[in-house]
Amino acid sequence: MQEMSFRRMAQSGSQGGATMELVTGGAGFIGSHLVDALVAQGKSVRVLDNFSSGREEFLAHHNGRSEVEIVKADLLDFDSLKAAMEGIDTVHHLAANPDIRLGTEVTDTDLRQGTVATYNVLEAMRHAGVERISFSSSSAIYGEASVMPTPETYGPVKPISLYGASKLASEALITAWCGTFGAKAWIHRFANIVGPRGTHGVIFDFIHKLKRDPSRLEVLGNGLQEKSYMSAEDCVRAMVHLVDQVDENVNLYNLGTGDTCSVRRIAEIVVEESGFDNVSIEYTGGDRGWAGDVPKTSLEVGYLFSTGFVPNMQSEDAIRHTARVLIQEIGL
Amino acid sequence: MQEMSFRRMAQSGSQGGATMELVTGGAGFIGSHLVDALVAQGKSVRVLDNFSSGREEFLAHHNGRSEVEIVKADLLDFDSLKAAMEGIDTVHHLAANPDIRLGTEVTDTDLRQGTVATYNVLEAMRHAGVERISFSSSSAIYGEASVMPTPETYGPVKPISLYGASKLASEALITAWCGTFGAKAWIHRFANIVGPRGTHGVIFDFIHKLKRDPSRLEVLGNGLQEKSYMSAEDCVRAMVHLVDQVDENVNLYNLGTGDTCSVRRIAEIVVEESGFDNVSIEYTGGDRGWAGDVPKTSLEVGYLFSTGFVPNMQSEDAIRHTARVLIQEIGL
Repeated sequence: MQEMSFRRMAQSGSQGGATMELVTGGAGFIGSHLVDALVAQGKSVRVLDNFSSGREEFLAHHNGRSEVEIVKADLLDFDSLKAAMEGIDTVHHLAANPDIRLGTEVTDTDLRQGTVATYNVLEAMRHAGVERISFSSSSAIYGEASVMPTPETYGPVKPISLYGASKLASEALITAWCGTFGAKAWIHRFANIVGPRGTHGVIFDFIHKLKRDPSRLEVLGNGLQEKSYMSAEDCVRAMVHLVDQVDENVNLYNLGTGDTCSVRRIAEIVVEESGFDNVSIEYTGGDRGWAGDVPKTSLEVGYLFSTGFVPNMQSEDAIRHTARVLIQEIGL
Repeated sequence: MQEMSFRRMAQSGSQGGATMELVTGGAGFIGSHLVDALVAQGKSVRVLDNFSSGREEFLAHHNGRSEVEIVKADLLDFDSLKAAMEGIDTVHHLAANPDIRLGTEVTDTDLRQGTVATYNVLEAMRHAGVERISFSSSSAIYGEASVMPTPETYGPVKPISLYGASKLASEALITAWCGTFGAKAWIHRFANIVGPRGTHGVIFDFIHKLKRDPSRLEVLGNGLQEKSYMSAEDCVRAMVHLVDQVDENVNLYNLGTGDTCSVRRIAEIVVEESGFDNVSIEYTGGDRGWAGDVPKTSLEVGYLFSTGFVPNMQSEDAIRHTARVLIQEIGL
């Protein structure tokens, strides 16, 4: 393979004037919200998804319109990925294993679907001359930070989950591609993102547990775990805002609301919204839900706010909104 | 695959009382110095090396003694790696692609020989119940840091080389294994390490250039690149010191001397030591040697020094010593 920089290669992304955006994982929970936001901006979007956790119905409202093109492919299929770069201006790389807890049982999923997949995305971009990547990283990269709220300048970062490790590895690959081949990146370190179409996470789990047994709700850990939450709508709005508004070589921001909510409070909200009476909330005990679960995360978001972004919902509002919508989606 | 923690598994490493240490890349430049240091401590050592850059002669002085066992295998060969964990107490994981510049031309070497290899090491440790890992990371993980000297607490870290990305990805995998499966880690962020048996790097390159043409020495960049250097002997002494002296769950330290040396000064020293007269030192220009080369690194080493470690050589001494020895090894 010869040395190639993005700038010296054919600029397939800028041919013909019309730009198109690629969203990997675009049929997934956050990805489908991002597709909505980009289409609302008047953009044409190509979705690349292997539909392992993404769902066609999350994009069904775009059916019959030319703005959204769907490609079913896995990021480990390099030829399909390269083909999908044709005519792309910006890659929004959101595809990843969404189940953080899985790493305690299967150790190579995050490596393959996270780190290696990100390598493939970057390599396909380089081959196609696509320069711009917006990446969904995570507060999981911080591990158990000793500074709260945790700013982007916190170090050393020591992820404790295999999911967090794959996100940090992906960040590193992205900055290396910027430094070596002249790519440009927006790296978004997400708080816990909640909202309609959620397919994983604590609210989703609680609703399914109540569906199985409306008399009791088992909470993993002592319920004192406390984290930053953000609505998916605010999250994708922040992503689009940053890509439009900030223009460094590498733009790295925490995305969150600035507050936190405890798992205990989430359990109470889900029970309230369920309408069930006399639910017994039971705690398994211990300071965390599972090995690799960070008991407390709080993201410093002053840097994001300094760009003019204001979230519409705080953590607790986002959780209640999500509980309400997911109860409708899942059905109790 | 079932969930397993180190502690719940058979402790093969502690059977029989006698401990053995595994050194991956133990036939390489720094690895072979570490083998010397461990043997000097009275330890038995198993070397695992694929001999891609390692050399048998680097360990020849241990031939015929029972303390050093050599296994020729690649870290991507998982079965051999698992077998090599038998009876091991601590893994010193040094194997990696040593050629930082290669990433500008071949993009998957650092991913495979760095990130995936580290994953395999950790996974083999988990299967065998080996708990302790000492890992050779690099100042390359910092990228172009805005704070100099750069402390371990600097963030966000944004490596600009694919080598640096693989080191940061490996750090992340290691801390995730500690957080999820109960491993214990020493992470050493190396300055530029120089010394006898060097097979890559600026001093090695300069000597080979002078060997080809004693009338001129071409220096990549403007020569104002300035970095922290440390002798290989001091480096492995610091590694052994930290593994013996500090005992957190994750022990992460910069390893260096506290000073820096410019590439221009290195060129002068190599020419002085070569004995050649009238060498014309010529600069290709530009602020860095190649895309992904960090022009200036300076490591803050107060944290290392606070543990009682004192280096024997400063940067310039280490460089002169290395030039002298490598000129003998390479032959001018």
